[in-house]
Amino acid sequence: MATRRFKLLLSYRGTHYHGWQQQPVLPTYKGELPPPDCGIPTIQETLASAMGHVLGHPVTVVGSSRTDAGVHAKGQVAHFDTDQSQIPLENLRRAVNHRLPQDILIREISPAADDFDAITAAKSKRYQYFVWNAPDRNPFFSDLCWHRWQAMDVAAMKIAAAHMVGEHDFTSFCRPGHHRETTVRTVYQCQVSSRGPQLVIGIEGNGFLWNMVRIMAGTLVEVGLEKYLPEDIPRMLAARDRTVGGSTAPPQGLWLQWIKM
Amino acid sequence: MATRRFKLLLSYRGTHYHGWQQQPVLPTYKGELPPPDCGIPTIQETLASAMGHVLGHPVTVVGSSRTDAGVHAKGQVAHFDTDQSQIPLENLRRAVNHRLPQDILIREISPAADDFDAITAAKSKRYQYFVWNAPDRNPFFSDLCWHRWQAMDVAAMKIAAAHMVGEHDFTSFCRPGHHRETTVRTVYQCQVSSRGPQLVIGIEGNGFLWNMVRIMAGTLVEVGLEKYLPEDIPRMLAARDRTVGGSTAPPQGLWLQWIKM
Repeated sequence: MATRRFKLLLSYRGTHYHGWQQQPVLPTYKGELPPPDCGIPTIQETLASAMGHVLGHPVTVVGSSRTDAGVHAKGQVAHFDTDQSQIPLENLRRAVNHRLPQDILIREISPAADDFDAITAAKSKRYQYFVWNAPDRNPFFSDLCWHRWQAMDVAAMKIAAAHMVGEHDFTSFCRPGHHRETTVRTVYQCQVSSRGPQLVIGIEGNGFLWNMVRIMAGTLVEVGLEKYLPEDIPRMLAARDRTVGGSTAPPQGLWLQWIKM
Repeated sequence: MATRRFKLLLSYRGTHYHGWQQQPVLPTYKGELPPPDCGIPTIQETLASAMGHVLGHPVTVVGSSRTDAGVHAKGQVAHFDTDQSQIPLENLRRAVNHRLPQDILIREISPAADDFDAITAAKSKRYQYFVWNAPDRNPFFSDLCWHRWQAMDVAAMKIAAAHMVGEHDFTSFCRPGHHRETTVRTVYQCQVSSRGPQLVIGIEGNGFLWNMVRIMAGTLVEVGLEKYLPEDIPRMLAARDRTVGGSTAPPQGLWLQWIKM
């Protein structure tokens, strides 16, 4: 039987995982510690193992975004190949979901072209960074957002966010060691909205460098705390130097919202 | 210095705790397993330890409701005594919250009368039971609600819920081994509401027996699944026999909403 390619749409809570896949350990800047390796499973291997059990052969799952340890996804996209054609896709989806832990869910499985590649097919991605901005933490969602108790200047954050939009070299907002050919990316949208104590930074772009969303979010929060001015953003971008950008926000506030193919 | 009594208002996510306090292990009915003891801390001992560190003396915290392992609280009430009067209450609250894990929060500390008792002072309590009723589970909140994928007859559940209201002997809705003098309780309100896939059972009463809310919720869900009819509820109440009541819903959907003193 011919091998065919399929596309996966996934949601997961990253709290108990070592990210989508194991990251290489590299030199760190500004207290950006390499993630500890304690034998914690990755999303990718957990998923591949459940799919392999159901399909009856080893499976390789290729994900569009390599989310960090502790980062969540509403709409991760991945692809895999199989020559198993006996199982209807919805039955396959249910059987794998039944095998997966409660914090990972396959939302859709659909047939894809033979040359579909979840990594290169991504045209744009949107991330959300959630900040819980209240004097007291939220004890129910502490692993799903970043608690900042200090009052924040949201108006200044909105102005700073607008400076991120456009085609820029994001070297100042990227963890070194990425081995990418270019550090130029286009940010289509960068918005800050708040509803009660919940502050959301939404960022859409054609691609993101390592830790780029977390450094953008961390820097915008520092603008909110008046460590930086909104006008510092163009200066940071122009410097193309990671030591000039702001801090890296912690992983638990970051959500991969969707990926457009 | 004189010892004075204080009242605590608390929120916690019960996922990683062995309940408010260690429960005795007793014979089980209908698959109601005793909670496993794996050296997991209780909310009470975690709280007492953090307060003891800040106050500089051993602290006993008495909670109004002994929530089970995995059960959450928005508004648990407790009391404790101290002769420490140097620390302003808001500073004490902040210092203890700083020592506590992220999933426990002291919302208020206030002075109480010397004879205030969090257990006997409770006039009414309200619990909420959250059901996620959709074909797919919610991977982000799997430890905060009960996933039931089957379609449910919410109208029948509402009628059944109304039958729970009033003064009744709740023996059929109570886990044996409670050692309470009477099994008669008054339920002031029992409501079922739904918004999208989220179904909430809200129950207010003057007091609750062991597992009473979970058995009421489990039985109402079974009415929704047409295992029972709404008219079975009066019959179950009249039987005063646990084997006649419905199943016990799992702990993760249960939230102690508030306690009126």
